[in-house]
Amino acid sequence: MYYETIKVLDCTIRDGGLVNKHDFSLEFVRRLYTLLTAAGVDYMEMGYKNSPELFDPKEYGPWKFCDDDLLWKVKDGIDSKMKMAVMADVGRVNMDAVKPASESPYQMFRVASYVKNIDKGISMVNAFHDMGYETTLNIMAVSRDRGPELDEALHQVNEECKADVLYLVDSFGAFYQEDIDKELARYKGIVKNKKFGFHGHNNQQLAFSNTIQAIINHVDYLDGSVSGMGRGAGNCTTELLLGFLKNPKYDLRPVLDAIQELFLPLQSKYEWGYIIPQMITGMLNRHPQDAIAVRKTEEKDMYRKFYEHMIND
Amino acid sequence: MYYETIKVLDCTIRDGGLVNKHDFSLEFVRRLYTLLTAAGVDYMEMGYKNSPELFDPKEYGPWKFCDDDLLWKVKDGIDSKMKMAVMADVGRVNMDAVKPASESPYQMFRVASYVKNIDKGISMVNAFHDMGYETTLNIMAVSRDRGPELDEALHQVNEECKADVLYLVDSFGAFYQEDIDKELARYKGIVKNKKFGFHGHNNQQLAFSNTIQAIINHVDYLDGSVSGMGRGAGNCTTELLLGFLKNPKYDLRPVLDAIQELFLPLQSKYEWGYIIPQMITGMLNRHPQDAIAVRKTEEKDMYRKFYEHMIND
Repeated sequence: MYYETIKVLDCTIRDGGLVNKHDFSLEFVRRLYTLLTAAGVDYMEMGYKNSPELFDPKEYGPWKFCDDDLLWKVKDGIDSKMKMAVMADVGRVNMDAVKPASESPYQMFRVASYVKNIDKGISMVNAFHDMGYETTLNIMAVSRDRGPELDEALHQVNEECKADVLYLVDSFGAFYQEDIDKELARYKGIVKNKKFGFHGHNNQQLAFSNTIQAIINHVDYLDGSVSGMGRGAGNCTTELLLGFLKNPKYDLRPVLDAIQELFLPLQSKYEWGYIIPQMITGMLNRHPQDAIAVRKTEEKDMYRKFYEHMIND
Repeated sequence: MYYETIKVLDCTIRDGGLVNKHDFSLEFVRRLYTLLTAAGVDYMEMGYKNSPELFDPKEYGPWKFCDDDLLWKVKDGIDSKMKMAVMADVGRVNMDAVKPASESPYQMFRVASYVKNIDKGISMVNAFHDMGYETTLNIMAVSRDRGPELDEALHQVNEECKADVLYLVDSFGAFYQEDIDKELARYKGIVKNKKFGFHGHNNQQLAFSNTIQAIINHVDYLDGSVSGMGRGAGNCTTELLLGFLKNPKYDLRPVLDAIQELFLPLQSKYEWGYIIPQMITGMLNRHPQDAIAVRKTEEKDMYRKFYEHMIND
């Protein structure tokens, strides 16, 4: 038995791009696009739609900007029904450069917003919606900002926002399964006109179990990344997720190929996943930035010192 | 708030010993004993109490046999209230060589038994109980043997077994959180005179979340291992578990020291934890032996081939 409404969104190139400054080759992304298509994945998130006026294209790979031309090149000659998604950060997109959905290579815009920027997030979502895109609103760092300000934001989302999907995002990998139950009950109690999604981080090895917990709570849009590649501790792995879902449209084999062919070599160059400093930030409900920073220093493995620093900070 | 009844049992040297043929130095184990004492851990499992007539002591380290002399040496000069546990496999212990609890360095005997050997397991537990030991009965591979034969075994445990604690063991790392709920309800529905414990494996990155799920179900005895060191995909990590428990008697810092000092170096020599072949055995509810075996061959990273082999086996 399976939930027919479930959609798997692979965010490897977008969230994984935060690990390698979005520096994937076109060949790499085309191969992953082919394999994820074969695996039956519903959406592939290609990166950020950032304005090149805000970030230096010499410093970042092309998937930080996701030019339409680039995404057309990904698709070129590959037969695929998988949809493409891009992510927009509040205040970082040149809205004038976005074409209507009917003329662009991607079908979905995901808008990432903190609670404090929710007005701007909603306004961006609504603009993309009016241009014909499927849209999601991903409220980040909810484990931190879950006081009355979150309720207020959710009411605003319910009343003003045209997003198709509202995402619960565990940016810090701080949620336990009972947090998932509680926050989703809150989301669903206030927001009555949307589907729901979940995006987890693996600081405490809970990204997959929290995703299962979201499924138990009838959440339909599920994020995974191949080998869990994503910022810091990374994400729920696409392979665990597809293995869990009993829907016959998904096939694990092409994802296993992707890991073997594409991600094993990457893992010797870049670090992501469960490591102690990441565990500590997750456990303390803190942004992963301190853990990422300490891993680039000579004190990368001085765990007690990092812990003392974080709890006394 | 915390459950005062909870006990943490660190099984690093025992389950981790399956990774390195029980080849830890005395100095290593004494250091870990000191650090786990400082962390407030309740029990430390030292290894197996196997008969040296059955296994060649030249081929295995001393923690496969756990001579009393050896365990006295671990304790020598260290001030500790932490209790020591040893594990007994059905049919592998020379019962005549076991001294009464009052004369031995360890306080707890854990008996590991498959459902099919439950009579022998119960009889061993009862013998150890009568010698004055705290005892646990750990029924292995329950994800495989959970038909009516398990109910029958549980009735027998309830009626005949003197164990203080009955363990639910997820040997294959195959359980999801709803399996934990269901199996514990079954255990508690039949077995009325024991405390309960949980021992998980991390094939699907669920060992920690399943341990939390056991806590939600009021299970009191929780197994962890430092850095998750244990056979195949390893265990719930002691560091995640102590970080989760709010009991002020536990201190994470000494475990962080242990990881940095003792386990990082080991990780460059031995493999354990979440890797794709281990994920595949967990997902398919199979013993980890095939995954462990393939990792020693040139086909260690041929994931699709291993998957095809396992599903067609």
